[in-house]
Amino acid sequence: MSDGAAITMIDELDGDTLHEECGVFGILGHPEAATLTALGLHALQHRGQEAAGIVSFDGQQFRAEKHMGLVGDHYTNPATLAKLPGAMAIGHTRYSTTGEVALRNVQPLFAELEVGGIAVAHNGNFTNGLTMRRQLIAGGAICQSTSDTEVVLHLIARSRYTNSTDRFIDAIRQMEGGYSMLALTRTKLIAARDPIGIRPLVMGELDGKPIFCSETCALDIIGAKYIRDVENGEVIICEMQPDGSITIDERKSTNPQPERLCLFEYVYFARPDSVVGGRSVYVARKNMGMNLAKEAAVEADVVVPVPDGGTPAALGYAQQSGIPFEYGIIRNHYVGRTFIEPTQQIRAFGVKLKHSANRAMIAGKRVVLVDDSIVRGTTSIKIVQMIRDAGAKEVHIRVASPMIFYPDFYGIDTPDADKLLANQYSDVNAMAKHIGADSLAFLSIDGLYQAVGGEARNPKKPQFTDHYFTGDYPTRLLDKDAETAGSKRSVLAAGG
Amino acid sequence: MSDGAAITMIDELDGDTLHEECGVFGILGHPEAATLTALGLHALQHRGQEAAGIVSFDGQQFRAEKHMGLVGDHYTNPATLAKLPGAMAIGHTRYSTTGEVALRNVQPLFAELEVGGIAVAHNGNFTNGLTMRRQLIAGGAICQSTSDTEVVLHLIARSRYTNSTDRFIDAIRQMEGGYSMLALTRTKLIAARDPIGIRPLVMGELDGKPIFCSETCALDIIGAKYIRDVENGEVIICEMQPDGSITIDERKSTNPQPERLCLFEYVYFARPDSVVGGRSVYVARKNMGMNLAKEAAVEADVVVPVPDGGTPAALGYAQQSGIPFEYGIIRNHYVGRTFIEPTQQIRAFGVKLKHSANRAMIAGKRVVLVDDSIVRGTTSIKIVQMIRDAGAKEVHIRVASPMIFYPDFYGIDTPDADKLLANQYSDVNAMAKHIGADSLAFLSIDGLYQAVGGEARNPKKPQFTDHYFTGDYPTRLLDKDAETAGSKRSVLAAGG
Amino acid sequence: MSDGAAITMIDELDGDTLHEECGVFGILGHPEAATLTALGLHALQHRGQEAAGIVSFDGQQFRAEKHMGLVGDHYTNPATLAKLPGAMAIGHTRYSTTGEVALRNVQPLFAELEVGGIAVAHNGNFTNGLTMRRQLIAGGAICQSTSDTEVVLHLIARSRYTNSTDRFIDAIRQMEGGYSMLALTRTKLIAARDPIGIRPLVMGELDGKPIFCSETCALDIIGAKYIRDVENGEVIICEMQPDGSITIDERKSTNPQPERLCLFEYVYFARPDSVVGGRSVYVARKNMGMNLAKEAAVEADVVVPVPDGGTPAALGYAQQSGIPFEYGIIRNHYVGRTFIEPTQQIRAFGVKLKHSANRAMIAGKRVVLVDDSIVRGTTSIKIVQMIRDAGAKEVHIRVASPMIFYPDFYGIDTPDADKLLANQYSDVNAMAKHIGADSLAFLSIDGLYQAVGGEARNPKKPQFTDHYFTGDYPTRLLDKDAETAGSKRSVLAAGG
Amino acid sequence: MSDGAAITMIDELDGDTLHEECGVFGILGHPEAATLTALGLHALQHRGQEAAGIVSFDGQQFRAEKHMGLVGDHYTNPATLAKLPGAMAIGHTRYSTTGEVALRNVQPLFAELEVGGIAVAHNGNFTNGLTMRRQLIAGGAICQSTSDTEVVLHLIARSRYTNSTDRFIDAIRQMEGGYSMLALTRTKLIAARDPIGIRPLVMGELDGKPIFCSETCALDIIGAKYIRDVENGEVIICEMQPDGSITIDERKSTNPQPERLCLFEYVYFARPDSVVGGRSVYVARKNMGMNLAKEAAVEADVVVPVPDGGTPAALGYAQQSGIPFEYGIIRNHYVGRTFIEPTQQIRAFGVKLKHSANRAMIAGKRVVLVDDSIVRGTTSIKIVQMIRDAGAKEVHIRVASPMIFYPDFYGIDTPDADKLLANQYSDVNAMAKHIGADSLAFLSIDGLYQAVGGEARNPKKPQFTDHYFTGDYPTRLLDKDAETAGSKRSVLAAGG
Repeated sequence: MSDGAAITMIDELDGDTLHEECGVFGILGHPEAATLTALGLHALQHRGQEAAGIVSFDGQQFRAEKHMGLVGDHYTNPATLAKLPGAMAIGHTRYSTTGEVALRNVQPLFAELEVGGIAVAHNGNFTNGLTMRRQLIAGGAICQSTSDTEVVLHLIARSRYTNSTDRFIDAIRQMEGGYSMLALTRTKLIAARDPIGIRPLVMGELDGKPIFCSETCALDIIGAKYIRDVENGEVIICEMQPDGSITIDERKSTNPQPERLCLFEYVYFARPDSVVGGRSVYVARKNMGMNLAKEAAVEADVVVPVPDGGTPAALGYAQQSGIPFEYGIIRNHYVGRTFIEPTQQIRAFGVKLKHSANRAMIAGKRVVLVDDSIVRGTTSIKIVQMIRDAGAKEVHIRVASPMIFYPDFYGIDTPDADKLLANQYSDVNAMAKHIGADSLAFLSIDGLYQAVGGEARNPKKPQFTDHYFTGDYPTRLLDKDAETAGSKRSVLAAGG
Repeated sequence: MSDGAAITMIDELDGDTLHEECGVFGILGHPEAATLTALGLHALQHRGQEAAGIVSFDGQQFRAEKHMGLVGDHYTNPATLAKLPGAMAIGHTRYSTTGEVALRNVQPLFAELEVGGIAVAHNGNFTNGLTMRRQLIAGGAICQSTSDTEVVLHLIARSRYTNSTDRFIDAIRQMEGGYSMLALTRTKLIAARDPIGIRPLVMGELDGKPIFCSETCALDIIGAKYIRDVENGEVIICEMQPDGSITIDERKSTNPQPERLCLFEYVYFARPDSVVGGRSVYVARKNMGMNLAKEAAVEADVVVPVPDGGTPAALGYAQQSGIPFEYGIIRNHYVGRTFIEPTQQIRAFGVKLKHSANRAMIAGKRVVLVDDSIVRGTTSIKIVQMIRDAGAKEVHIRVASPMIFYPDFYGIDTPDADKLLANQYSDVNAMAKHIGADSLAFLSIDGLYQAVGGEARNPKKPQFTDHYFTGDYPTRLLDKDAETAGSKRSVLAAGG
Repeated sequence: MSDGAAITMIDELDGDTLHEECGVFGILGHPEAATLTALGLHALQHRGQEAAGIVSFDGQQFRAEKHMGLVGDHYTNPATLAKLPGAMAIGHTRYSTTGEVALRNVQPLFAELEVGGIAVAHNGNFTNGLTMRRQLIAGGAICQSTSDTEVVLHLIARSRYTNSTDRFIDAIRQMEGGYSMLALTRTKLIAARDPIGIRPLVMGELDGKPIFCSETCALDIIGAKYIRDVENGEVIICEMQPDGSITIDERKSTNPQPERLCLFEYVYFARPDSVVGGRSVYVARKNMGMNLAKEAAVEADVVVPVPDGGTPAALGYAQQSGIPFEYGIIRNHYVGRTFIEPTQQIRAFGVKLKHSANRAMIAGKRVVLVDDSIVRGTTSIKIVQMIRDAGAKEVHIRVASPMIFYPDFYGIDTPDADKLLANQYSDVNAMAKHIGADSLAFLSIDGLYQAVGGEARNPKKPQFTDHYFTGDYPTRLLDKDAETAGSKRSVLAAGG
Repeated sequence: MSDGAAITMIDELDGDTLHEECGVFGILGHPEAATLTALGLHALQHRGQEAAGIVSFDGQQFRAEKHMGLVGDHYTNPATLAKLPGAMAIGHTRYSTTGEVALRNVQPLFAELEVGGIAVAHNGNFTNGLTMRRQLIAGGAICQSTSDTEVVLHLIARSRYTNSTDRFIDAIRQMEGGYSMLALTRTKLIAARDPIGIRPLVMGELDGKPIFCSETCALDIIGAKYIRDVENGEVIICEMQPDGSITIDERKSTNPQPERLCLFEYVYFARPDSVVGGRSVYVARKNMGMNLAKEAAVEADVVVPVPDGGTPAALGYAQQSGIPFEYGIIRNHYVGRTFIEPTQQIRAFGVKLKHSANRAMIAGKRVVLVDDSIVRGTTSIKIVQMIRDAGAKEVHIRVASPMIFYPDFYGIDTPDADKLLANQYSDVNAMAKHIGADSLAFLSIDGLYQAVGGEARNPKKPQFTDHYFTGDYPTRLLDKDAETAGSKRSVLAAGG
């Protein structure tokens, strides 16, 4: 029974995508809190496939279940849910950015405080997590995990305030970065979003009971009603009263700043049926494709989406351009493992395990391939190869977002800057040649802003977080300035 | 170590689909025969997710690996493939029709004969399997599995011929039904298709080495070339000669009859990128949608596919009707397990685990839902409910195949006739009301024939197998006439 | 889910012991037949640790559970036993002699016959198993396992008799060798022992219901009463009558021959608390030690048993010689796995994982080490080394059985003849030197006969089976004469 | 991947024994530190079968492997040991007293301090653990485990000293109770024993490299040399110097007090081949049996040990009394799981799964049963029942230790006082009747003292820890006085 044992993951193609680290879900006052949390996390599975945890409180005791793997691998077991009684629960599904893969890093994390227990889960990343951790260790704190979330727990434990809400706010005021956070105490469910609202967090209700979750799709799966987004810099405290009623207290943790949601939520992370910041993600993506068709038209016979990320944009591109939309690439639903490649290598092997060319829609055709983004470009090369092998006359790549030049520090796992395609070639034609495409075009930053928010980028006061495209980081970067991210690793590597 | 132990399956919605039982793959003369077979089976995974087996021969010894679960769960392990040396292999991926779930039923099955070992794998079902089994047991044969394939092995073992090819042909001549079969001996790879070619089987080659597989998509994944379909009633014997060359001997097992491929391969089973009987499955499905739009037009704002089966037909419907195609239903890729439903029931629960309504494309809209087929209708009810809950103004269902009235006996797992929606209501309006749709229409049988083959059904000499729609069974049904299918079960239920 | 997957075994030291292959247990008419069978097999676990299987019949259906590993690993699970309903069951625990390790070889084996199903389990080995298998395959039979038991099933299936009892007797009359066999039909529990009774089999009863099992210890664990040994060449048929009563029919399968029980059952295999052939195994072993003390006295300070086999003999030796009996070697109860030896090798490493020297009883002492038998001698070398390292002044080995010169063909897994210590050295002094002992002595064959049966060996008509010591095989050896045992392996190696 | 998942344990009979919680092992400067630690823990397996952990340091990074189950279940895997590189390691095998069963409680525990990482493992229990934990939480510390060891880590982390040795000593000075403790820093292996030396700890060496372990048997298995016992109240700091040499610094953590080793180490816990406090455990146990024979003689035919604890004492009893020693009870080596008892109950069921009566040595005999101790007496009842069922004429129980009246707080898991047999009956005859024995006698406290140390108990200054017999606790009991042990439980119950 190892706690770092074999993990089943849904691999993305060659790691040539960006990873979001987490989804969160919490509910207060519902008799089947853990069951609903499991369903909510299942709907948020796309935000993290590495591990999932749930903590519940039954009036007497906090209970935790944490498991490596998909939500459906464990929380479909009635025995597992039976171990999570109570009307209050928070849950977390994760892809790791900081912190190695080990069960003790799986959230929610829990601490027994003098004022009672507290469990915390968050999506995002602190830009001063390492700095704070060092200060805490110097002050005699023991860090059991390598997760930034534990830093918050320590700050809560060491706060001079007596009330758990005050301690929580005291703690998050010391943290910088992008985060959406949920906390569970013996009577309260607390939700908080970072000062500029980089990561999303919404509030809903089911039978009058408050729910918080990363995306609206987690409300839909359980038939809950969307109320509003948690605002940037806001803390909402829902408390179960002795008479069974629930009070809701809305506060600000910081002085108001303009909200800047992460654009990549619209480009790639959020589920298309979610509504983020009041905007349909699906509509935003179709708009990206439409704007791309306006900006980068090409004569062609067929518009083919690169599944699944590029599909809405491809549909938008097709509708705008009038070129027929066709499934030129078929996705194999049974992915997840890396098969062994024969010695006699197969062209585009990695891609073929997951996708196949639909020859009838490709052969002899001029194909526009629409993808959501290009990170390293390694997958694009194989896809073009596969499309050409299927007989395409021309292959034109259209990317529904701008070129990526800069790393992220707010919860998105980006490769080293020099691995990014955009940093390897000076112009788009060289990139097209590298990939093997007849032409290549990216959506402009203004095209993206307009697709999402209706207006072009305001360079003085950008409406969204967009540093991966522009280098304009929305906060200072304390840890990064202090040292390299590599030293963030704990010296205990726990395999088991 | 149980041989009937826990199985991970990709559940279909409520079992409200038809199941195909098998995919087969075989290759002769290639140094990485087992690795290529594993890849081929992965591409055929949609034909059976219950178990997969591979038998190889290395010049000295036959080796078998059989595992419950997906191909990728086991055959991605180098240690497993290392146990399958040799340049000859056949593999099988299965969904069980006859035969309970137990490892000893997983194909390929093997027998040691006086003339040497032989392994057999097949896709399809024998209509006289039970009858033959009874005769064999009366003659002192011992049946270890409950699989029909074992009957063929016994007939081979007891044949009076001395040559393995002659024994094989002698055996299959005694069997009736629909099947595509592969056999592996110490020197030969043999492929055979039933007299009217109900189940598909194609021949390809890689580096000059012959391959047989259920669909062309298994050739594509390894970069192999399609040569031709194995003909109905044909037996092809590929033999490795002492000098390393391969001879190919093409024979007929029976007198020629007209070919009648199963229409459901086009409607639902085959992968859209496969070419079956020389016809693109994707194009056939789009044609079904186009014909459906002609036959059953409706005023609407949006055409929404029921994923994934209905997607090509929906695209065809949209292109023909001019109504925009939109993703009104989003599929959750992380399915596979049945979550626990809260006591306070969630509307359309089962469907929501796998699909969600994309409200932005549904609310206030007149929706045309396009599905590939309706079996029991239980899923349709939930999908309509989910679409209405998302605010649809009208919901019109269009089904890209005719009503299903009759069970199958050739390898498709159909529910009891009285469970079929078409047998429960006398007219389509009553069905629509039952499902909750504003209207409902099915593609006509001629519309389907034209979509697939270009011509209407020839009632005297139907071009395809279509009994589920018409009751016109293409062969006699010996077992069925003799008794009920229930008694087909062996009296040994092996749980472990 | 592999059927040849990882197996947990209680390894014996370096394989330097003989292995018995099987224990059997059967009961008729008891409502908890499978539960009692599991307990009986647990008591017989020392006869085979590789796998265990149970078949029950509930009046409607035969059910089988077969699992690699110990009885306690699987049959302690209520869910597993619940899958074995009915008042009739037979079970088997095995160590393989013939037949590779694979679940499909685990007994009981089952066949559906025209006259109804039959399950068979046996302990022992057929000396004409291979010869019969060849005849059967030539006659068109398909062998799915590599177990000799399957040969019996085929003979039953092909018998010209109509009654299952007659078919069973017809089948075993064709088999030669040493065996104790149980069969279960829809109404009968049949027990049979080979013509000279090499392998043991006893009959007992619980609440008036008949039980058969390999040793009396399996009766003791469930509080059942011992009735008598099944006689050599006897077949006992217990039949459940329609009125619920049980009839017992005792027959002879062959002409009476004198019984010759295997001496190794007394020397090593049987549990000391069992009564075999009417003689207490424990008393027999103590007698061996006493006779050894008479035959091979030595001046010493302490008698130390080599655990656990040598313990009763050591006690006998001590009581006879007057030298104190002491635990000079302590057994580690947590064995089972082979630990990794450090590069800097540890003396007597393999032995130390399982035993340790009790220095307080060894240092400065003249030690008599008493062991039950010596096979290859590799363990003896390490034990002497360990005892010397603990400070022994002298080490004298006394072995409570004669030297082993010849292989067995009746169910005991013996190493190749040239690996046996007795065949490597011409005299006992050379052996002592090889092992590192100050002296070495073996019990004489007459000393052994007297210990077990009270009388010296009758060379013309030996009272026991003793070929491993004498070369006097009690039956002809058809397979061995026909060819080497190596070719007995099937050409299908099923890893999964 | 749960961290609280299914655990395989070697159950003791009905829980009717006392449990020791831990064994520890550490080595400094040996290239195969982890491999040797695994072997040492295997030899200490009897001290804790629930879980085992090893932490190593390779000069760069600490690595941890922790697994539920036996040492041999995991640390025999080369891949697991490969994850533990470095020349320094400490390991721990545990049976839990305080702290629930969960992987995060498995030792060694680790903390990253400002002065570098430290790993700690201990055997024993703190009598002020809960009190200290409360103080720490009030001071803002976060406790992730429910293990007392974590308290020590926090005290080290918060110590005002800068040097790790000083911090360690500062921390253990604040703890009360019985413990043997090992710590590993980047350069040091530190060993410490509680002020009166309740729990054992010895020092050895292999190739000049220092080793510490709970018992000498862990030295024997790897061929290491015993140097001396760590003294009570002593701290030994072994440090790796930059030049590769090792310095050894011996200190006192407290003012000297007389040593009082726990008597139960001699009675039951330690392995018989170990030397504890300079005395052979085996010899001490034989002495107990001899003294018992003097104190409580009885006319009988045979002395039978209750395996395995009672065996050496039984041998002593037999040698002293002249009554023959015989194996009247045979132990089944394949225990570990609880089988299902038939509805029709089996007499002495629980005992029979593990032991069986050797009827040949029992029937018609007057039997002296010698056991090491009686806790609740539930097992004794069943054993007497089994012996009587086997035909014993008389059954006399002789217990080689005094009656147990009081619970332990130093690492032995004792049942509630009212469950102890000695507290349920006023005199030994009533107990004998309750158990079903013809007579019953316990060794006197002086008899025990003499057996172990040669002298009777000095009531003013007892030479050993013996409160379970006498009520004379060797330290104050802060936690117990403050409240009940029940409230020691954390409010987080982590199932996964």
